[in-house]
Amino acid sequence: MIIAMQADATPEEVQAVIEKVSEVGMRPLPLPGGDRTVIGVASAIPPDLREALTEMVLALPGVDHVAQVSRAYKLASREFHAADTVVDARGVAIGGAAIVVMAGPCAIESREQLRAAARAVREAGGRILRGGAFKARTSPYAFQGLGVEGLKLLKEVGGELGLVTVTEVMDQHDVEVVAEHADILQIGARNMQNYPLLVAVGKSTHPVVLKRGASATLDEWLLAAEYILSQGNPNVVLCERGVHPLDRTYTRNTLDLSAVSVVKEISHLPVIVDPSHATGSWKHVPAMSRAAVAAGADGLLIEIHPDPKRALCDGPQALKLDAFARLMEDLRRVASAVGRET
Amino acid sequence: MIIAMQADATPEEVQAVIEKVSEVGMRPLPLPGGDRTVIGVASAIPPDLREALTEMVLALPGVDHVAQVSRAYKLASREFHAADTVVDARGVAIGGAAIVVMAGPCAIESREQLRAAARAVREAGGRILRGGAFKARTSPYAFQGLGVEGLKLLKEVGGELGLVTVTEVMDQHDVEVVAEHADILQIGARNMQNYPLLVAVGKSTHPVVLKRGASATLDEWLLAAEYILSQGNPNVVLCERGVHPLDRTYTRNTLDLSAVSVVKEISHLPVIVDPSHATGSWKHVPAMSRAAVAAGADGLLIEIHPDPKRALCDGPQALKLDAFARLMEDLRRVASAVGRET
Amino acid sequence: MIIAMQADATPEEVQAVIEKVSEVGMRPLPLPGGDRTVIGVASAIPPDLREALTEMVLALPGVDHVAQVSRAYKLASREFHAADTVVDARGVAIGGAAIVVMAGPCAIESREQLRAAARAVREAGGRILRGGAFKARTSPYAFQGLGVEGLKLLKEVGGELGLVTVTEVMDQHDVEVVAEHADILQIGARNMQNYPLLVAVGKSTHPVVLKRGASATLDEWLLAAEYILSQGNPNVVLCERGVHPLDRTYTRNTLDLSAVSVVKEISHLPVIVDPSHATGSWKHVPAMSRAAVAAGADGLLIEIHPDPKRALCDGPQALKLDAFARLMEDLRRVASAVGRET
Amino acid sequence: MIIAMQADATPEEVQAVIEKVSEVGMRPLPLPGGDRTVIGVASAIPPDLREALTEMVLALPGVDHVAQVSRAYKLASREFHAADTVVDARGVAIGGAAIVVMAGPCAIESREQLRAAARAVREAGGRILRGGAFKARTSPYAFQGLGVEGLKLLKEVGGELGLVTVTEVMDQHDVEVVAEHADILQIGARNMQNYPLLVAVGKSTHPVVLKRGASATLDEWLLAAEYILSQGNPNVVLCERGVHPLDRTYTRNTLDLSAVSVVKEISHLPVIVDPSHATGSWKHVPAMSRAAVAAGADGLLIEIHPDPKRALCDGPQALKLDAFARLMEDLRRVASAVGRET
Repeated sequence: MIIAMQADATPEEVQAVIEKVSEVGMRPLPLPGGDRTVIGVASAIPPDLREALTEMVLALPGVDHVAQVSRAYKLASREFHAADTVVDARGVAIGGAAIVVMAGPCAIESREQLRAAARAVREAGGRILRGGAFKARTSPYAFQGLGVEGLKLLKEVGGELGLVTVTEVMDQHDVEVVAEHADILQIGARNMQNYPLLVAVGKSTHPVVLKRGASATLDEWLLAAEYILSQGNPNVVLCERGVHPLDRTYTRNTLDLSAVSVVKEISHLPVIVDPSHATGSWKHVPAMSRAAVAAGADGLLIEIHPDPKRALCDGPQALKLDAFARLMEDLRRVASAVGRET
Repeated sequence: MIIAMQADATPEEVQAVIEKVSEVGMRPLPLPGGDRTVIGVASAIPPDLREALTEMVLALPGVDHVAQVSRAYKLASREFHAADTVVDARGVAIGGAAIVVMAGPCAIESREQLRAAARAVREAGGRILRGGAFKARTSPYAFQGLGVEGLKLLKEVGGELGLVTVTEVMDQHDVEVVAEHADILQIGARNMQNYPLLVAVGKSTHPVVLKRGASATLDEWLLAAEYILSQGNPNVVLCERGVHPLDRTYTRNTLDLSAVSVVKEISHLPVIVDPSHATGSWKHVPAMSRAAVAAGADGLLIEIHPDPKRALCDGPQALKLDAFARLMEDLRRVASAVGRET
Repeated sequence: MIIAMQADATPEEVQAVIEKVSEVGMRPLPLPGGDRTVIGVASAIPPDLREALTEMVLALPGVDHVAQVSRAYKLASREFHAADTVVDARGVAIGGAAIVVMAGPCAIESREQLRAAARAVREAGGRILRGGAFKARTSPYAFQGLGVEGLKLLKEVGGELGLVTVTEVMDQHDVEVVAEHADILQIGARNMQNYPLLVAVGKSTHPVVLKRGASATLDEWLLAAEYILSQGNPNVVLCERGVHPLDRTYTRNTLDLSAVSVVKEISHLPVIVDPSHATGSWKHVPAMSRAAVAAGADGLLIEIHPDPKRALCDGPQALKLDAFARLMEDLRRVASAVGRET
Repeated sequence: MIIAMQADATPEEVQAVIEKVSEVGMRPLPLPGGDRTVIGVASAIPPDLREALTEMVLALPGVDHVAQVSRAYKLASREFHAADTVVDARGVAIGGAAIVVMAGPCAIESREQLRAAARAVREAGGRILRGGAFKARTSPYAFQGLGVEGLKLLKEVGGELGLVTVTEVMDQHDVEVVAEHADILQIGARNMQNYPLLVAVGKSTHPVVLKRGASATLDEWLLAAEYILSQGNPNVVLCERGVHPLDRTYTRNTLDLSAVSVVKEISHLPVIVDPSHATGSWKHVPAMSRAAVAAGADGLLIEIHPDPKRALCDGPQALKLDAFARLMEDLRRVASAVGRET
């Protein structure tokens, strides 16, 4: 941590900062010679002191700003854990050599609909079935999902077809029931900073897909992962799903693929991409899926539907089943071009 | 709803849209003569059909885009409820002629700290005491609040000094215990789209302060309010607290005061402003507080602390007690200049 | 400047950074003891070295990031020039005790239109007349202004009514002709980083109103001012006009009033606000004008039109003349409430 | 165009809108039956009327909002020109089957530096040499380029090695001299809305690479292209270079690759990607280059430097020459995987 004083800070103000740093057991080191006094903290700052010390120092008079030297997250950092984490989802490795495709409908609507989608996933070589039972909808008047009935269908259809399953959990008190019915827990973008929920899935042993919030910085996203990791669950898969866009004339969000490249550098956790929510339009899902794999993503989360124009949720972004099959062929070629398998 | 076809849409594609609109009981009206076919929906669309119809139409081939004519929210709209809503918070009217100031520490740390802040609120003429018991913190290593012990202190100190109280609730299963100890429930920005929580406070009769999410559009914010209103709780107070900023060199967020002016036009709900989280710096709180009142805000939510440099949470944005007293004087003058009271 | 190495940087990589800093004549100071090596630059870095050194260091292997300690701008900084700059615009002081209102039509359309607006400005107590002759329009098919003919009308009408005049210059080769006809030169938001144009107005002695670009950070804005100041023209007036919004459903941009408060702290230059372009709607101009004055702005730039529904440019954001007169009364009260004059 | 009235608009207000639409020669068509009156414009609106009519209507009382049905741009639209435009840059086809790589240093520093970079471009199979002579720098104290001397070096070295050349023009009065020395003119992101400059390159016959502004919507970008096209120059190549990011901790901008997919759908113009400015870090350039090709980009604009740590401009984002050679191999494989050549 580096504390830059205002150019006109008084010696007393500088001294108060030095004392505050000492008071919490850290070693202050004034850095002379520039156009203002700078005080470095010459100690490794424990994670639980970092934010508190920053705030206490910033509340002192004469302080201009504080620059952080170390990462805000620890367990999620590659500095702490150099090797890639490979998450095992009931036999499917996420973060290994193979690109993992998770696909299925936005919302589970019926046994027939889910089964049709699931068959398409299996036939195209996908290994994980997605399907929403609890839906987070912007409008209270929109379809909110089938709830536990949907979970049962997911378990049944996944079991029938030998597919691993993933579904969203929106309430910490539902973690148990969702974990009984599905193999992977998903935290939606709107809940990325729902801390009680993060703590609850952190106490589970199920893999967790953690979507990035619509305006979350990479540090905020990795700190959300840290909430889960620090509860003892190491099986976190990060999912980029687009950030708030410049405008919504043509896409729902802006897919931030450089986040994939950056996060693979600074963290050891697997990163997947959801091109469906990112673009909001099936037309752009194939191009963004190919790009995600080329950018180094470890997998994809794709919405498909046997009949998008009758979908109860997010029809415009769902690929038809035949388009999905063609996309899987494309992805095989792109994965191979970048040294990955499918 | 207006459905614009692609310029090269076929007659069959146009017909399919017309049929879909008819199928759901709405009246399609093709609008000829422009550079593409446009189909208007010449019926008032029920709220629970609006999103579903939009998505189903967008999933049809040949459709370019859909433009909405009506508002996505209904109960929150001034078109539905023309007169200003005045929320009664145990005798304090929010949304009436008087500007309401809610102030107190970010986090309740001790009886002494809360009492000192509460006395400052009362002496300066404030009527509502804020104080956090459950804290949503970006880092899992930061201080998370005193929990129920904090709630008890809030009730005790509020009662002693005759102040109405407000505190954040982060978990739907805590609504009851929070409502027992505090007069107003606050939903934080990170939870603006935590729908189970919105439904839970919608079933309460306590007033609810609903903060705007960091990248929430005004429609998304009003739809979050709609979740609460549609459960039967009419006592919603909107709180602007800054949106994700261009950069964080000098402020934590960007306070969007035009949102106050716009929301007062399109909604009947009271709107207050939180200049503390918006700026993240006590230096800018007085200017932004004055500006908020001049912009037409119905109140302010301000962080104060008897000793910011020892605060366990958000010290850099807390006003000292004497600065708060001076600000209250300023606000009295500005309120009077724009025809309001304090 | 603080250089943070990667946690796993080698001693050779650290040494290379130390040598690079020495090579350019600065004094490197390694800061031991944290979880990575940090190298401080213990010298005041000359402005023309700052960016070059940053980039050269960042291009070295093993460097994690560079944090700046000093400001990127110098002449625009309050650290360099503590007292408020008051710009004299042919007798009107901008940045002094009085709030300065500049008003007039978006585009000069005719002598009659400009005269009607100018009379309204003078009658309401405004002292500066704005009017566009060269218009920057998003669409090539939109009205582009009357050009030099418009400049002549501005000079004529300003002279008749004793008003100081301001108009936009879009081309560095037009600076001379604009300066002959108008008292203040305006740089539009789209040209904030048109560096040849900034240099050209920097060589003029006319006051310059420099609008903030739609996604410019405060540092980028002050560096644009620095371009002008460093050419020898000290008469820069900063103008906040809204940043790119979260969405454009209700406003054209997001007015960033905290920028006023921050810039008044970090810079000595006067700051005015353009509520017309910020909101894009006359309905919100009065509230945002009052808020700007309450936030500490030194003036306002407001679009008015005798008949907005026939305006050739930006009619929806133009105030009618009677609404402008009423607003001026409001501003008088707000200015007085915050200790300013009008 | 669709004009939605306020829910409480009076019959007189509706009538005034109908009359305004008729007055400009368009056919108004009221759409009854919804929760408010809507008036469609049942005529193809000429481009030069579209913005004016929108603004005039919005300035009328009782109007809630206007929704556009047709595109704001015409010449740039695929609706107007269905087939892909292939731009011929002195024998190199941009927008055809082959991916075109343009590479070279940010700034031309010397004959030796440029020659080393140019040789690397040719050896790796690139066909276009980039190099900046006039540099747009955020700080007035940063290196501003060699100017005409740089142009001469570019022409000389390009000629020697048989490479087509591209360089930025920042001033409309320099278009001629730049066009004498370089084969392709580049408009930088900061100048995307410098309309006199767009008009000037529109009068040239040289191909123009038009970078997207940092907060430009796709419509604003295509309207900037329209400025060039409407002057008679059809040879416009769009270049995505990242938009203003959520934060700058790890990247300079956010590369918006969905823009590539969308623009290829709505426009016939070629689209290339600049991963160097988008990320600001050489580490992420290979991943983003691969992703761009997989997303359907027609080419890349990449910064390379023989010795980045001594570069006078943007060293941290420049690839070393051997890394560039390896990237070209990668791109060959990815291009092939998506059915393109290199």
